[in-house]
This record gives sequence, structure tokens and C-alpha cells, in this order.
Amino acid sequence: MPDQPTTVTAAVIIIGDEILSGRTKDQNLGFLAEALNEVGVQLRECRVVADVETEIVAAVNELRRRFDYVFTTGGIGPTHDDITADSIGAAFGLKVDYNPAAVAILEGHYAHTGAELNQSRMRMARTPAGAALVENPVSKAPGFRVENVYVMAGIPAICQAMFHSLKHELVGGDPVHSVAIAVHLAEGTLAKGLGALQDKYPDVSMGSYPFYRDGRFGASIVARSQAPDRLAAAADDIRRLMRDLDGEPIEQDG
Amino acid sequence: MPDQPTTVTAAVIIIGDEILSGRTKDQNLGFLAEALNEVGVQLRECRVVADVETEIVAAVNELRRRFDYVFTTGGIGPTHDDITADSIGAAFGLKVDYNPAAVAILEGHYAHTGAELNQSRMRMARTPAGAALVENPVSKAPGFRVENVYVMAGIPAICQAMFHSLKHELVGGDPVHSVAIAVHLAEGTLAKGLGALQDKYPDVSMGSYPFYRDGRFGASIVARSQAPDRLAAAADDIRRLMRDLDGEPIEQDG
Repeated sequence: MPDQPTTVTAAVIIIGDEILSGRTKDQNLGFLAEALNEVGVQLRECRVVADVETEIVAAVNELRRRFDYVFTTGGIGPTHDDITADSIGAAFGLKVDYNPAAVAILEGHYAHTGAELNQSRMRMARTPAGAALVENPVSKAPGFRVENVYVMAGIPAICQAMFHSLKHELVGGDPVHSVAIAVHLAEGTLAKGLGALQDKYPDVSMGSYPFYRDGRFGASIVARSQAPDRLAAAADDIRRLMRDLDGEPIEQDG
Repeated sequence: MPDQPTTVTAAVIIIGDEILSGRTKDQNLGFLAEALNEVGVQLRECRVVADVETEIVAAVNELRRRFDYVFTTGGIGPTHDDITADSIGAAFGLKVDYNPAAVAILEGHYAHTGAELNQSRMRMARTPAGAALVENPVSKAPGFRVENVYVMAGIPAICQAMFHSLKHELVGGDPVHSVAIAVHLAEGTLAKGLGALQDKYPDVSMGSYPFYRDGRFGASIVARSQAPDRLAAAADDIRRLMRDLDGEPIEQDG
């Protein structure tokens, strides 16, 4: 028997009234889903919560116990609605105060830019006691980590930069490989055979995603597995099923 | 004293491994956030969960008790990975079986198209006992409602069409009005005055969203309230604050 694959999981918490009001379209979930997968971490749940401390605390405390890592985005700027640091402190029962290393970063940055490091900007140096900082190469004000919870900015460019700063710390598991094959057949035509293949390959997860393009119906079948050989065998069977139904398999993402 | 505003709330549950894997970028959250707001329903939380029955059941049962409405997207097609109907049935403790009205819709549709109404396609007529149907003008297979939980398709065009089919049933509250004003000032410059205005107007929620465009930093201040007069007064104060700091207010969304 081969070794069981190692699975490392994560959840994302997007903190932001602006996403829930529809004013801003989230861009961080899609980025994090892909970027985590690349380092062997499987995103298993995402929550979008309002800028309300009790909601943030409840989400953090549930998800940090259920998953190996939790990543939050949003709410770490200088304004009154930036309450993530206090919420993370409350979730862990830790005092939140000025973090000397973060203060030093901000002092250096504002001395350089000439802008005033006022009390509002100093809010960005507050973290729960003992937090490790996450470098922000874009605008300097750092993110931070408490235990398995990483706290990042909401602005996509800064969130992405922070993730690249911290990803070397993550201990990933066996990566999930995937194969996507499209076909111009209706899902209802493929469904029976596909269900039988799912039963044949319990260690390969098969998803079917219908589409309608250029006046034709079709489905994209995505197979995912931590076992490359099983994935390859399942993909061959999926292509054979499509051809048996008079469909021509179209390989997706190269 | 004016009457307290009526607030009606909702949560969205996006069911889909393909969103969590990063392969598909969700488009339904942004649509639903805006569309719900237009009918006086405030979206308060969104969860993206995997195609796993226990996860779906847990999310549905928590959120249907906390919010006035819950909307799910995804997992109602004909393939083995479409497990939403069974999961909703499990959440409510209801038997899931062929819904006669849904069967009639599918029979009419497939008689018309000439495609076979096979056992896989018949899966799309299964609902929890007593569910009310949600019309699908795009591809006919209906969504459904059990109590305060609406179940819709994941394909954006179908999700949107189903929402338009059901929205007349929703009983909204007082709408949330909003004003957005941008300025080429750093958040750290605005923060102190904005915090004071938030304290002055507790019934107006003020959010600050920094941006970096065309080589200049700025912030978009979004004020939201169910009380139009208070919102207008708060917006005037925000514009005055910006001018006092040598910033020119830029009105957003007309």
C-alpha cells in the first residue's frame, strides 16, 4: 500500500462590509484559492463577514480549530472601521498593543515619505501580544500571524504581496493535481457514466460544470486527486466515456 | 421619535469545490449582494463551502436561524456531485423525492427539445417534501424553497434568472441608502476626522477604502444608512472634512 497522502487545509475569512454590500467585488478568494493550492494547502471554506467584532471572533475561533491555517483579509488600515487586530486579540484572549517591530517599520517608512506618523497611522502598528509580523513590500504597514491565523490586508495588490511574503512559512501537504476535459455533450447525457467512474475512483474527486458557449451546450469535467497515477487512469476513462457518447474530449489548461 | 427602521437580513451559501479550488471565479456573490439590497434585504454573511453534505447542512442550519433569508447557489444539476437537494432535505429533516410539479416541467421541456429525460436528468426534479419551486426561465430545471431557504443554480446566468423569478416573494425592509465620496488624501490623514464623524452619526455606517490609481493615493469614503436625512447630513460633514484637509471631494456613482 502506498502511504496515505498528507492533506493540509485552510479557510479564508474576508472581512468587509464593502463586499457584502456589493460595492466592491472580492478578488482575494480566487487568488488565495490558487496560491494555496500551489503550496500544497487545500482551501476548504471561505466566509465573508461584516465589520463586526463578534462576527469576526466567531468565525476565527471556529475555523482556526477546524483547519490547519486561517487567512483573513481586510480591516487592518488606519481608520475607525479597521477592527481586525482587536478582533483577533479578542478571539485569542490576547491584549492588543503597539508592536515594537511594527512601530519601527512605520517610523522608518514615514520618515522616508515625509508624511506624519499620526495616531491614526500608528493604529496600523497594533497587534495582539506576541504576534509575528508579515512583511508588506507595497505599503509597509505589516500583517501579522497569531498561531495558525494569518492576518492580511484587503487591497488585492497588498494581500497578494503579503501572501508571497509569508508563503515560505507554510508547511504544505501533498498537492492536489487536476485534469479538466471539456466536451460538447449535455451533463444529463454524461451523468450516468460519470457517476459510475466516480464510484470506480473514490480517491479522485470528479466535478461536472456545465457551460453554454457559442450556441452549444457542454460540460467541463474536472478530476482532482493527490495520486497522479490514479488521476491519469481516471482521466483516460473520462475521455473514453465521452467518445463512447460521440463527444470529442477537449483538453483544458494544457 | 421616528419609527425604528425595519431591517431584513440574508446570508448566501455558495456550494462549490470549483470555487474553493480556484478554478472558477465566483460571480454570484456580487450579483446577489446588489440585487438583495435593491429589494431591501441586507446581505450579512456569505459562506463558500465544499460539495460535502455535512458542511452544507451545518452552514444551512446555522444561517437559516440567524438570518431572515438564506440563498444557496450550486449543486442542483444532474450529476453525482449535485448534492444540494439531499443536503437541504437533511438540514430540515425532510424526505427528498421527485416533486410532481418539477417532473411536469422537465417532461414538458424534454418533450420539446427531443433529448431523453433519463434518470440523471430526473434527479433535477428531486426536492425536499413540500418545497415550493423557483422558476428557471433559462434551462427549465427549477430551483426551490424550503421555509426561508432558497436554492438556486450555480451558473451565473441561471442564478440571476432564478433570483428575478423569486424576488417578488421577498419581504424587504427599509432600504440602505449609500453615498460614496472619493478624495486624493491618504487614509491616515482622514482617519481622525472620519472617526469623529462616525461617533457623531452612530446611525450612519462609514467605511474607508483606500486606493492607488494613476500614481496617486486616495480613499473612497462610503456612508450607508436607512435614514436618508441623516445620511445627507453625514455626507455634507464628510465633504467638509475633506476640504478642511485640502482635498477635493469627488462624488461617486452619480
